[in-house]
Amino acid sequence: MSFTIAEKNIREAGGDGFAQDLASLKMVIEVRLDQLLPRGGEPSLAARYSLLAPAKRLRAVLTVLAARQCGGAEEAALDVACAVEMVHTASLVFDDLPAMDDADLRRGVPTPHKVYGDDVAILAGIGLLNGAFGVVAQAQSLSPTQRVEVVEVLSRAVGWTGLVQGQALDLAHGEGSIDDIHYGKTGALFVAAALAGAACAGAPVSARAPLVTYGRELGLAYQALDDVLDHVASDGLAGKSTRKDADKRTAVMLGSVPSGGLRAAKSRAERHLEAAAEAASAVCDGSPLVALTEHIRAHFEKVGA
Amino acid sequence: MSFTIAEKNIREAGGDGFAQDLASLKMVIEVRLDQLLPRGGEPSLAARYSLLAPAKRLRAVLTVLAARQCGGAEEAALDVACAVEMVHTASLVFDDLPAMDDADLRRGVPTPHKVYGDDVAILAGIGLLNGAFGVVAQAQSLSPTQRVEVVEVLSRAVGWTGLVQGQALDLAHGEGSIDDIHYGKTGALFVAAALAGAACAGAPVSARAPLVTYGRELGLAYQALDDVLDHVASDGLAGKSTRKDADKRTAVMLGSVPSGGLRAAKSRAERHLEAAAEAASAVCDGSPLVALTEHIRAHFEKVGA
Repeated sequence: MSFTIAEKNIREAGGDGFAQDLASLKMVIEVRLDQLLPRGGEPSLAARYSLLAPAKRLRAVLTVLAARQCGGAEEAALDVACAVEMVHTASLVFDDLPAMDDADLRRGVPTPHKVYGDDVAILAGIGLLNGAFGVVAQAQSLSPTQRVEVVEVLSRAVGWTGLVQGQALDLAHGEGSIDDIHYGKTGALFVAAALAGAACAGAPVSARAPLVTYGRELGLAYQALDDVLDHVASDGLAGKSTRKDADKRTAVMLGSVPSGGLRAAKSRAERHLEAAAEAASAVCDGSPLVALTEHIRAHFEKVGA
Repeated sequence: MSFTIAEKNIREAGGDGFAQDLASLKMVIEVRLDQLLPRGGEPSLAARYSLLAPAKRLRAVLTVLAARQCGGAEEAALDVACAVEMVHTASLVFDDLPAMDDADLRRGVPTPHKVYGDDVAILAGIGLLNGAFGVVAQAQSLSPTQRVEVVEVLSRAVGWTGLVQGQALDLAHGEGSIDDIHYGKTGALFVAAALAGAACAGAPVSARAPLVTYGRELGLAYQALDDVLDHVASDGLAGKSTRKDADKRTAVMLGSVPSGGLRAAKSRAERHLEAAAEAASAVCDGSPLVALTEHIRAHFEKVGA
């Protein structure tokens, strides 16, 4: 990423100290992502295309903030945060495929299968998911025990009760409540991002339970707000194909009429944000993770959700 | 797997002690695979369908034999061997997709996308690949350092210079020699299987280089013989869709006429088998891995390659 873009990030973040902090963190994460992904071969080019496209890096930021809140050095959590972002990007690449949600736009650019073909996009997704585990295994600043813990946490988030299940339920393969779907699609990786940060900081076991609650509640809030955004925003503003969820069970469609659905989804998100903030305040010095809930609320307000 | 099938495996293996040993090892691996994969949700059912279909379990066997040859307990290598088999099965699920090789038959049964749909098959592949890392992270009989080493070895085999690259080259996305393609498609995971076994046994660093050579040579031999089989066998005998490679750069198609190509591929395989056996004899007690080269030669002779 060029320094100009980094400066633009920070400038746009405005005067709020936390927002500037996040913008600078995002810059550090993006520089490291660029270093971690090789160049060479179409699959890695397609992976770079998806991974380095403009994005909020929210899950990666969550990992670093969880490490900070648990008293760990942010540098130690950086590669793990990048691994979390790689897992997330892999899930977007897969979910956008024609065989899945068949989306044309993501992160403000055409989806990778539109640019590189379905086969290369699938290989890019595999490479990103697999590469995340490789990055964790090679995270020199962590002990082998910490790396193993992070691998386990990430694998659980992706697996049969995480992203894989969430996407299957979302595609209507099986019965699941809206919370089951949202937890699988989003909450599971938010939980993993928080726990991975705690693992990097060598956090005490007592920190884990509130972090699980925090990740889950923040994920459910985020998904509800994302459903609202999907409903009200244009593709250009959302940076991705919207209204692909018209026939799905989303937070908005739970209501019987669209506007009632929108209001219900917003109040649903609000409840989850409050629960997240409450859980965060129980973890060591709660301030960074509480501030993140405020930041997410503000972000969605800004884009109209 | 039922005990009847296990007995059938062992009976079919005949009087050869090593063959019986492999048959019993295969049985142990299949019982453990069945335990490691949950039931519940369509993606895991599709994954079980692919993973537990009749297969040689060659890569998993290689992991256990490498551990044995390096003086390790086979039990300690069992879960890692299962992880290797899960990675291999994931690669088959992905490679057989309509967007890739578009194959209808694998392991003697219809490919998972034919049975469960493309979307669920992709999720099954993700679950298997991801699950392999989870299994390694939870392998209680290994130290954290050993688990991290195995995660790294597996990730390297799958990644940008391994299976992902091999499949990309095979689909003609980029320039690669026949050895580059075969190494990526097959050799890389054979190398990883051998190194993972060595890691489970806590083998000395001096064992690694010959194991890399062994895995590479055995993989290249196997792929050349598999190309021959693809050319001469029916789908039923091969247990998979054959002649999908008609327009690809295979060992057989290197020759200018089919019969010359077949002879050339067989002699190519022979050279690689000899190189593998030579490398194996340099690792501790070389016998199990040398015997495996003989076993592979005999297997392909039996099925007509």
